Amino acid sequence: MAEPETVLLEDEVLRDGLQMESRIFSLAEKVKIFQLLQEAKVPRIQVGSFVHPKLVPQMADTDALVRQLISNSGVLLTGLVLNEQGLERALACGLSHVSMSVSASDTHSRKNARRPAEEALAAMTVLISQAKRANLKVRGGIQCAFGCVYEGRVGEEKVLAMAQAMASAGADEVNLADTAGVGHPQQVRFLVRKVRQEVPQVELSLHLHDTRGLGLANMFVGYEEGVRVFDVCAGGLGGCPFVKGAAGNVPAEDAVHMFGAMGVETGIDLAKLSKVVEELEFLLGRSLPGRMRRVLGAERVGI
Amino acid sequence: MAEPETVLLEDEVLRDGLQMESRIFSLAEKVKIFQLLQEAKVPRIQVGSFVHPKLVPQMADTDALVRQLISNSGVLLTGLVLNEQGLERALACGLSHVSMSVSASDTHSRKNARRPAEEALAAMTVLISQAKRANLKVRGGIQCAFGCVYEGRVGEEKVLAMAQAMASAGADEVNLADTAGVGHPQQVRFLVRKVRQEVPQVELSLHLHDTRGLGLANMFVGYEEGVRVFDVCAGGLGGCPFVKGAAGNVPAEDAVHMFGAMGVETGIDLAKLSKVVEELEFLLGRSLPGRMRRVLGAERVGI
Repeated sequence: MAEPETVLLEDEVLRDGLQMESRIFSLAEKVKIFQLLQEAKVPRIQVGSFVHPKLVPQMADTDALVRQLISNSGVLLTGLVLNEQGLERALACGLSHVSMSVSASDTHSRKNARRPAEEALAAMTVLISQAKRANLKVRGGIQCAFGCVYEGRVGEEKVLAMAQAMASAGADEVNLADTAGVGHPQQVRFLVRKVRQEVPQVELSLHLHDTRGLGLANMFVGYEEGVRVFDVCAGGLGGCPFVKGAAGNVPAEDAVHMFGAMGVETGIDLAKLSKVVEELEFLLGRSLPGRMRRVLGAERVGI
Repeated sequence: MAEPETVLLEDEVLRDGLQMESRIFSLAEKVKIFQLLQEAKVPRIQVGSFVHPKLVPQMADTDALVRQLISNSGVLLTGLVLNEQGLERALACGLSHVSMSVSASDTHSRKNARRPAEEALAAMTVLISQAKRANLKVRGGIQCAFGCVYEGRVGEEKVLAMAQAMASAGADEVNLADTAGVGHPQQVRFLVRKVRQEVPQVELSLHLHDTRGLGLANMFVGYEEGVRVFDVCAGGLGGCPFVKGAAGNVPAEDAVHMFGAMGVETGIDLAKLSKVVEELEFLLGRSLPGRMRRVLGAERVGI
């Protein structure tokens, strides 16, 4: 019998999820969430970002968090690095894997990173080389790869050139992010196919926002096109600051269910993942958009 | 230039949406919702079901509603018919299109329709013939086509035989319903392909529940496999009584957005469709799961 297909899900609730929340989570609360994710056997967890604490106070304790968690086995820890100081901090904490990210949209880059997209990309390729020299695994992310709230359509040639630049600089993985949640399945199929042709040597991953309800549809199409690494957030936390009230990232539990239903292994325990969502809903005092926790809670009668 | 692809969306909020609600909507409220759907240019609307008012009091005024709406042009009205009395009522109201529906799951059929699945199917084929003799357009629906909360997997050979029986009896359209919301995209691809091979002469449509978040993913795959008729509910109302709190039907507005983003025409005005969702949320006093009303409300800045 053939081996079952597997995918790797990276949970980003501690970074992409919490950075959008006005409530600042304590270090102990973050550790608790991490432990619940770990108990659910989530294989890769993005625990925070090494940005200036004044810019994103929610992430101020990322170094301390990593130091506390780094000896945990069975989980690959990663953190978001956006500049040299961030890289130094990530190295000082002992991380062996980092994510970097720049925008394909010039307007978005100027607003979000306060520099033109081209300049941001050039700086990132330097940063990737530095990280590789320090023996880190590096993922290079392309924000707004499927379109931008400000600029609308983003040309695929720009995305392809960025992917190529990241791969040439030594990135182990290139991540296409639908930051604005505007991508649709046909577009995902098209762009993923193109990028995989352009940089066949790197792992391609997808970071999909569920703003318009297409997160799982886009993830499925990405899977059909050969993508095997996907970002998720327990509960579907996170998302786009420009669309208040809309949904965030693809809920981890719904992705685990989808792949499980298709016989694709994530290695993640869905019932235990529900505990993460429960904890987040308790701490935030509101329901999160993910579906499977409620299904699991209501059902337990079969299927 | 090639004509753009088109799909037909049937809104079922007045039937599948409202029948699950404890609040009984007045005739005037239903008319208002219908008018808003009509203003949004929804091409086909299922306005109610001709069941016994004691069994489904929410649908007790279906006859009166149809009589009030029947002269409206530009919208194809349809209603759910489950037995001979229902067919007589639909004909007496002047409907020219009816939907019928039986379950592929014997347990579900016994619980829901109080008869074995085989007996229900036999009765329905008789009913289809009667409706065709009366010059009605008929859609035959297969509930639990993708699985059942009680029985788990439903064999595809059963679904194929049912589709064949309905087509032979004269059904113009066969509808595969994911009543329990357990279908996944690979399964939709497989089953739709099989059914289209089995009964190429009839239109195939899909009725997908979003219980586990896969509604749009399944709809997209159905579209890729050639399906051009889909059921939706404004706001994503409706759904499965066995999974309280979980999402209902595929939200009409999210389906309109998905197809629109892909350049596939629905003919539906998304901004006006939001008014339907607003009205439903006002009447029900709660938020509905559909995403696009919130996106449209928050955005209006591009894309």
